[in-house]
Amino acid sequence: MKTKRLFAALAFSLALLPVAAQQNVGFRAARVQSPVVNADNTVTFRISAPKARTVMVMGDWENEPRASLKEGQDGVWEYTTPKPLPSEMYTYRFMVDNVMMLDPVNAFTRRDVGNVFSTFYVGGGNGDYYKVRDVPHGNVTQTYYHSDAVGQDRRMTVYTPACYNKNDGKKYPVLYLLHGSGGDETAWPELGLVAHVMDNLLAEGKIEPMIVVMPNGNIVKTAAPGETSENHDYKPMMSNQIEGNYKNGIYETAFPEIISFVEKNYRVKADKNSRAIAGLSMGGFHTLFTSLNYPEKFGYIGLFSAGLNLTGLDMTLPAYNDIDGKLANLKKKGYKLFWVACGNADGLFQANKDLCKRMDNQDMKYEFVETSRGHIWANWRQYLLTFSQRLFK
Amino acid sequence: MKTKRLFAALAFSLALLPVAAQQNVGFRAARVQSPVVNADNTVTFRISAPKARTVMVMGDWENEPRASLKEGQDGVWEYTTPKPLPSEMYTYRFMVDNVMMLDPVNAFTRRDVGNVFSTFYVGGGNGDYYKVRDVPHGNVTQTYYHSDAVGQDRRMTVYTPACYNKNDGKKYPVLYLLHGSGGDETAWPELGLVAHVMDNLLAEGKIEPMIVVMPNGNIVKTAAPGETSENHDYKPMMSNQIEGNYKNGIYETAFPEIISFVEKNYRVKADKNSRAIAGLSMGGFHTLFTSLNYPEKFGYIGLFSAGLNLTGLDMTLPAYNDIDGKLANLKKKGYKLFWVACGNADGLFQANKDLCKRMDNQDMKYEFVETSRGHIWANWRQYLLTFSQRLFK
Repeated sequence: MKTKRLFAALAFSLALLPVAAQQNVGFRAARVQSPVVNADNTVTFRISAPKARTVMVMGDWENEPRASLKEGQDGVWEYTTPKPLPSEMYTYRFMVDNVMMLDPVNAFTRRDVGNVFSTFYVGGGNGDYYKVRDVPHGNVTQTYYHSDAVGQDRRMTVYTPACYNKNDGKKYPVLYLLHGSGGDETAWPELGLVAHVMDNLLAEGKIEPMIVVMPNGNIVKTAAPGETSENHDYKPMMSNQIEGNYKNGIYETAFPEIISFVEKNYRVKADKNSRAIAGLSMGGFHTLFTSLNYPEKFGYIGLFSAGLNLTGLDMTLPAYNDIDGKLANLKKKGYKLFWVACGNADGLFQANKDLCKRMDNQDMKYEFVETSRGHIWANWRQYLLTFSQRLFK
Repeated sequence: MKTKRLFAALAFSLALLPVAAQQNVGFRAARVQSPVVNADNTVTFRISAPKARTVMVMGDWENEPRASLKEGQDGVWEYTTPKPLPSEMYTYRFMVDNVMMLDPVNAFTRRDVGNVFSTFYVGGGNGDYYKVRDVPHGNVTQTYYHSDAVGQDRRMTVYTPACYNKNDGKKYPVLYLLHGSGGDETAWPELGLVAHVMDNLLAEGKIEPMIVVMPNGNIVKTAAPGETSENHDYKPMMSNQIEGNYKNGIYETAFPEIISFVEKNYRVKADKNSRAIAGLSMGGFHTLFTSLNYPEKFGYIGLFSAGLNLTGLDMTLPAYNDIDGKLANLKKKGYKLFWVACGNADGLFQANKDLCKRMDNQDMKYEFVETSRGHIWANWRQYLLTFSQRLFK
């Protein structure tokens, strides 16, 4: 036991170290618990702020998403939602004396465009698909494809299902899943919880095993903010605020570069009916014009609250011209599913209805799914849950 | 131009939509700029907090890491570091009226154990290796290996260099890189900026192309907090606070499972001198005992501020017993490099020196690198920069 004594003599408490000299040690759990999802799915928020005069919580749930916390005796402010929240993944922030902040005791965060939010799950419904379950897990990879169109390597996120790792030579269909304005190749993985959704649906036998490719859709940037050679000088912003014309048609016309990269680097079924394309908001715009310009590429097309507001669009560009002629051509070439979903509180609702009218005029088949609520991630996650179950069957 | 008119009629401003109905649109750039790295590498912090009584910034730099901001006329508080900060990736938070918070206008954040921090880079030195440069980029993959030892799929992060994607049959050496207590498979990628470091060193021809495998080292958990089936119920905490004995020897003795998975799923040179293992803090502890128990596996061994405080360790376990005998065996089996680095302000400095004394007693070859400062990521990133350049040459 000489060894044991020697090491015991060297032992010391890390807690005695000066704070400035250490990281990754000595972390202490918080005194207050927040958020707490109660048994009835009401949610309680707490923050210790003894000097604050006002504390609010601002969330993305539907019923009373802004509310004041009340101060208790010990400087801990508290608020419980008056009603249970529907099952979902939620984001929220506190506003303490008018300063926006995360919940300081909640380590789970997500960035949406340029804001960072605290998050929580409410189970018992859709939220159970967004959580991790004890099922086989697929891979999530950040990789780069070379775009000759812009002369740059561009980043994408790729999900491959757990069974892909068997390396048994089996080939898989591909869903190309596009983000919205202000988003990037991390939006669907982080806010859309794509890996969790796909793992869970696949484990339940509700979807075909598929690869999901989530490319960066901001053609004037190579990757997400923080992951380009501009580093922190490229701050997250809406895509139409990025310097350079993001609606120049290059992304849509160069889309086959992405397909070629995927089909070269992954075990992929390379036929039309094994390819789907879908996108939210700006990604719905990209989806529409990519599929119109390449009617032979995709058997499945999904528009999620598509950004069909075409203000400022140069419709003389080959990528965007002759919509009706291209729709006619798409009809002729054929497709398995043209799926349009939009919330009826979304400002884009009418624009999506109008696209449907255009298709009606040409007697084209499509499905229009009207949901409640607006231009929100809760809808886009729901659309992915629904749309993915329709693919490749 | 009928099309153009039709769509123009549908156009509307997204800015007019009610806030609650939309996400991912209408993000506005902040009024204040923070942080700003000035031309002389001093850094200015700002926050709009008109009602605050005190505002502090707390960072992980060496010189005056805590300082008070001063309020200007418009409710914007400001502070500039008195001296330039050395080139590095830094983390910081604000404390407004004693409430810890992120910089609300800085979207770039990192989680370290259970705290989330705002981040920035200062260039001109090491920091330039941590930033993204316009060089070929490798892949970063989250994947799962099956551990028979614990009967679970466990998550790891794998970096493969850009040249790996040529799919030319070339095989690569592997660095197994282990995180510290409170960390997980996201710690080295996020806080160690492994992909940026490797991309940049490789582009400069300073390292051999290598695969970097970053497994989860908390044997009683399958993945990082938020990525296990406990979801948010498993909050980040120090590894010794996780229920279950994390120093039970299973991780170190089951380590060949990780190697087998990697060598089966990646194009890997599967010989001793093509394998390196290194780890920070608890990961240094894991590195020592894994290499002592498998002296035939690794040609390169790196201890980064290794957690060689063995208090509470059951040294009768086969994983941990007979250190001197195992060191002798390691010497006999041979190795290319045994590299020990520690900051001289680190509470673990003496324990690392004492390990060196043990090796001296056996006339074993090793290198001891003494650096300034303590148990901090700035040191671990520096150690990775240095150690990786010594490998596989």
